[in-house]
Amino acid sequence: MSAPLTIAFLSSDLDFSYLLPAFRAQFPQARLCLGTELGPLDQIDAAVCWYPPEGLLARLPRLRLIQSVGAGIDHITADPALPALPVCRIVDPDMGQGMTAYVTWAVIQHQRYMGAYLRSAAARRWEEQPVQPPRQHRVGIAGLGTLGLACAEALLKIGYSVRGWSRSPKQDLPEGLQAFHGEAGQAEFLAGCDTLVCLLPLTDDTRGILCRELFDQLPRGAHLINVGRGAHLVEADLLAALASGQLAAATLDALTQEPLPPEHPFWADPRILITPHIATRTDPAVIARQTADNLARIDAGRAAEVAVDLQRGY
Amino acid sequence: MSAPLTIAFLSSDLDFSYLLPAFRAQFPQARLCLGTELGPLDQIDAAVCWYPPEGLLARLPRLRLIQSVGAGIDHITADPALPALPVCRIVDPDMGQGMTAYVTWAVIQHQRYMGAYLRSAAARRWEEQPVQPPRQHRVGIAGLGTLGLACAEALLKIGYSVRGWSRSPKQDLPEGLQAFHGEAGQAEFLAGCDTLVCLLPLTDDTRGILCRELFDQLPRGAHLINVGRGAHLVEADLLAALASGQLAAATLDALTQEPLPPEHPFWADPRILITPHIATRTDPAVIARQTADNLARIDAGRAAEVAVDLQRGY
Repeated sequence: MSAPLTIAFLSSDLDFSYLLPAFRAQFPQARLCLGTELGPLDQIDAAVCWYPPEGLLARLPRLRLIQSVGAGIDHITADPALPALPVCRIVDPDMGQGMTAYVTWAVIQHQRYMGAYLRSAAARRWEEQPVQPPRQHRVGIAGLGTLGLACAEALLKIGYSVRGWSRSPKQDLPEGLQAFHGEAGQAEFLAGCDTLVCLLPLTDDTRGILCRELFDQLPRGAHLINVGRGAHLVEADLLAALASGQLAAATLDALTQEPLPPEHPFWADPRILITPHIATRTDPAVIARQTADNLARIDAGRAAEVAVDLQRGY
Repeated sequence: MSAPLTIAFLSSDLDFSYLLPAFRAQFPQARLCLGTELGPLDQIDAAVCWYPPEGLLARLPRLRLIQSVGAGIDHITADPALPALPVCRIVDPDMGQGMTAYVTWAVIQHQRYMGAYLRSAAARRWEEQPVQPPRQHRVGIAGLGTLGLACAEALLKIGYSVRGWSRSPKQDLPEGLQAFHGEAGQAEFLAGCDTLVCLLPLTDDTRGILCRELFDQLPRGAHLINVGRGAHLVEADLLAALASGQLAAATLDALTQEPLPPEHPFWADPRILITPHIATRTDPAVIARQTADNLARIDAGRAAEVAVDLQRGY
């Protein structure tokens, strides 16, 4: 009798027990193990990961799928001992909805002075702010994957002037989206971003991309929204750009240190809004279903279709 | 030599001087008069109005166009001495954009607990709130005119479950919008509004429509967004519905008294957000151009095409 399918949930900083009911429903015959209760390492078939402990994946001889629980895989590929196995990410339309709602809110919150209205209301003051139509405000989306395109479409529908940047040229872009790509298109893209939304994958090319050199290419007084990864941002450069007025505001949902410690200078700057990495979440049932699909394809020898291109990084 | 075209700007509570440059550009030959400097009343051809002084329009014998500066005309038709002349309203796509941005913001602000994140950030606290996907939240738009449809389309694009209600059935509705109409459809519509957006015209039928009887038909804990008119709302009923928990929150951009006086109880209730009638504005150039178009049509005998149906009220 062969051993049951074994799925391990591996994370250095997240309690994965919230995923167990959905995986139990999707894999009624499987053995699910997490935390310090992994059992024999040579029986693990699949690893569901968010910052897995470094070196651990290399010690699982039977492993054949490394499944990220998010849209990114940088938290997995940072492991220098990463074995040569398929690494899959989640592609979830509902995750796009949550992200789109968050990004749309953040764009409007700044462009329409909603923070000022909230402060006036708290002080019982009827105080008008300028009312500018959305089409006069240019929003740039860096990263035109599923999430970036969903955000672009919603912002276009409201009436914002939307531009997008991606590493390579994209087909079938939404009507009205002004598209730029590659290093050659970057300066022109940035010059027209009153608000810049970072939805790039985190790769060696994009680590620290939100830095002084980039900020200096934005229109003066731009608003930065980082919903990518904390490591996209050079924190000192953000503080300097806000102090000089080159940036007017920043909305950050992804930070290098999470939770952000109370003494971090970002909290103290009224031009920075921190949210606790809540822009979007993936439904556990979607993670379980996509893990099952990926395992089935890998077992049928079709791994290349589902795995992330590790050279490219997404 | 005939007298020049004369356009009067009539308002009891608004300083219309901001409109003069756009009208000067649109009507270079015309005489433009406002405030107490109206000149001979029998020379006025067109009146551009926002709450015009009661009875004044009836005293303009040469008048042939009454032009509202907004999407509504209730501020004009409230005059019991209103003469039998064409009353026109502004239909402005940019006004739809401003409204859509405001309504979208207000929906997300409540559904995604953005107020709680703003308070946590101010206290340097990393505190998560529930993350529910937009499709689990039902937004109902009461009033499916230009503004209501623009809001519905943007909310659908983000992923919200959107329903709409109109007095009479509508054609060519956006895909995915669940439509209700008439008295017969009202209860079913209201029962599925986690957020209710009022974008109705103000008529005898809709005055005071946002009252206890309506609130009681919403799901418990609903959010009310009033971007119609202050007179749609029965203020005491709103306070009672919030106190009982039948409503969880209200976002009000239109109030009966504007500016809302500091002693008004709405300011004191943390569940009510007041904004100073800023959801949207119309570009003065659009008002001037539509005034010119309407005058040209009226002079060509095509008044019926452009005027509001005063029986219906919109």
